[in-house]
Amino acid sequence: ASYNLFLLPGDGIGPEVMKEVEAIIAWFNAEGIARFEVDRGLVGGSAYDAHGQAISEADMAKAMASDAVLFGAVGGPKWDKVPYDVRPEAGLLRLRKDLGLFANLRPAICYPALADASSLKREVVEGLDILIVRELTGGVYFGEPKTITDLGNGQKRGIDTQVYETYEIERIARVAFDLAKTRRNKVSSAEKRNVMKTGVLWNEIVTRIHAAEYPGVQLEHVLADNCAMQLVRWPKQYDVIVTDNLFGDVLSDVAAMLTGSLGMLPSASLGAPDAKTGRRKSLYEPVHGSAPDIAGTGAANPIAMIASFGMALRYSLGLGDWADKLDQAIAAVLAQGIRTKDIAGSQPANATTTQMGAAILGELKKL
Amino acid sequence: ASYNLFLLPGDGIGPEVMKEVEAIIAWFNAEGIARFEVDRGLVGGSAYDAHGQAISEADMAKAMASDAVLFGAVGGPKWDKVPYDVRPEAGLLRLRKDLGLFANLRPAICYPALADASSLKREVVEGLDILIVRELTGGVYFGEPKTITDLGNGQKRGIDTQVYETYEIERIARVAFDLAKTRRNKVSSAEKRNVMKTGVLWNEIVTRIHAAEYPGVQLEHVLADNCAMQLVRWPKQYDVIVTDNLFGDVLSDVAAMLTGSLGMLPSASLGAPDAKTGRRKSLYEPVHGSAPDIAGTGAANPIAMIASFGMALRYSLGLGDWADKLDQAIAAVLAQGIRTKDIAGSQPANATTTQMGAAILGELKKL
Ligand SMILES: CC(C)[C@H](C(=O)O)[C@@H](O)C(=O)O
Ligand SMILES: CC(C)[C@H](C(=O)O)[C@@H](O)C(=O)O
Repeated sequence: ASYNLFLLPGDGIGPEVMKEVEAIIAWFNAEGIARFEVDRGLVGGSAYDAHGQAISEADMAKAMASDAVLFGAVGGPKWDKVPYDVRPEAGLLRLRKDLGLFANLRPAICYPALADASSLKREVVEGLDILIVRELTGGVYFGEPKTITDLGNGQKRGIDTQVYETYEIERIARVAFDLAKTRRNKVSSAEKRNVMKTGVLWNEIVTRIHAAEYPGVQLEHVLADNCAMQLVRWPKQYDVIVTDNLFGDVLSDVAAMLTGSLGMLPSASLGAPDAKTGRRKSLYEPVHGSAPDIAGTGAANPIAMIASFGMALRYSLGLGDWADKLDQAIAAVLAQGIRTKDIAGSQPANATTTQMGAAILGELKKL
Repeated sequence: ASYNLFLLPGDGIGPEVMKEVEAIIAWFNAEGIARFEVDRGLVGGSAYDAHGQAISEADMAKAMASDAVLFGAVGGPKWDKVPYDVRPEAGLLRLRKDLGLFANLRPAICYPALADASSLKREVVEGLDILIVRELTGGVYFGEPKTITDLGNGQKRGIDTQVYETYEIERIARVAFDLAKTRRNKVSSAEKRNVMKTGVLWNEIVTRIHAAEYPGVQLEHVLADNCAMQLVRWPKQYDVIVTDNLFGDVLSDVAAMLTGSLGMLPSASLGAPDAKTGRRKSLYEPVHGSAPDIAGTGAANPIAMIASFGMALRYSLGLGDWADKLDQAIAAVLAQGIRTKDIAGSQPANATTTQMGAAILGELKKL
């Protein structure tokens, strides 16, 4: 089968880590394992610099037509003062919304070789493997009104609106329950039903979907503030956490930082399956940001971007077995002690971005 | 001077930990150090059980007239199904709103004797002393509309609204800057300006107040998700964190859990100074909840409640020197190895709620 991959490297270290994925894609094509058609576009600050938008209509059209978007990272101090509507993040938010990528999957895995890099005690994080399922196209990110109004007399009023409808909660709940069945069969649903009406609705719908469709999966409800606390106290109590867009933003960052391997964590954002073809629109991106402070120094860790491509192989490109092999190649390289700066601990780094990418591809070739 | 204290012990372990504060108050009166008039009321589930409301009008009036409210904790599984408007939390939220307690101060301090109780490495949390200043009467907690609407066709829509006006951000920013001046002179302002209009406004106002009134204080802006991450990675980078109601809820829980001493952390909620008397309305409560699972077992740690009374001595009762002494008494008891269950680590507890309270009062008497 042939697949269209649309690459949006973005800003900062985005292009550097994407380059390592491109090398792996080229190898898949050269070996005849897959037929990947690759196109490239601009997003974020680099798109703004080129044409004054965080993403162009032409690139949006290519993203819509692709089988998977591979996304690097956006933003940096250079664009801190650009108008709100064309700030770098606007490109990412438009991709999520217009492609209908409602399900954001963020695994937080603590690699044994790296457990000491965590700020948490080894026994708290060693072997950690949780999955945050974050709703990505609703909530306070997109609800209207979203305005700043001048009230005169020196006062302004800022408004953001959190909106959730039944169907939005139903579909993300199903994603979480389905994934839990392939894992340790437990879902923790996080909201603030004691303060928010959307939390009350969230709780009600998740409870109903569970009872009607997934009675065999263990379900617990947890208040989002308590969930943040429990993630710090004893994260291994969790398997799948399902939560809204804003809580998901914060909780997934906490979970990522627990692992001590921020430069290694991938994510997948998926749409609903197409009624005819069954294909889902999708976007894959590392959890880390554009890290402008280290851009161009060769210090960036490409593993999160490579592992994001691994998630694309699994969820969009029909190559789950190669996704497994890519994970094995990453684990092998880590076991050999190859380290970019972010995961070197008190030792000096012994690999640049390119060397890490090459080492992983080298291991992949042996599998 | 004579002061009116209004005690709302609430549910679960609330009454047990409040009892230890009552003993300390009685001692202050007996020694003639202060003249505290004490009255008691009901809040939360216990108020609902008594008269169907989370707090009665009579008790609200007493709270309004008091110099300080001492609040235990509310909630428990017993009241999980009561109607939204009269759920236990509604009593606390009404107190905050009607008393105008816009400034919530949550210190996160890691007591040296307890650093090992943290899930984080000792070097990450030892000596930690940060202060979260949370806006408490605005944002998504109180904004309208806050509704669930039935759309027919099996669909409902939940809405919560985050609203902030200039004056609300100005006054909480001033509280944060003023407190920073008495500490390490640094304020970190956390919002999501890349996604939320209220975040854009928050950022703008904090920046303006800083430049105009507090140029000598160091100010940094941090995205709320990154702040949660940084709290886990290296919390000692922070001094004062100022943030909105909802982010403050989550970030202060993360900060509290870092210290490994959740049962020990107090909080103060303050209103604006009265134009005539200069007095602020105020409420003092432990950061921990009602812990229904251990209620009645004598396992509850009264330190957070006692330290909350210490904050009342400092901020509302004109007895800052006695607040210092109370802190010293707590530190002395900890140094002696006296431990309730929550802070005993792998050792068995050697003190009940009452024994811990008595030990602290005993030390106080020596100072
Ligand atoms: C860049 C930003 C808009 C984004 C978000 O808030 O969703 C990021 O923090 C994330 O988690 O992917
Ligand atoms: C009990 C609840 C309403 C409250 C809140 O969300 O503010 C609590 O979590 C807190 O932090 O004081």
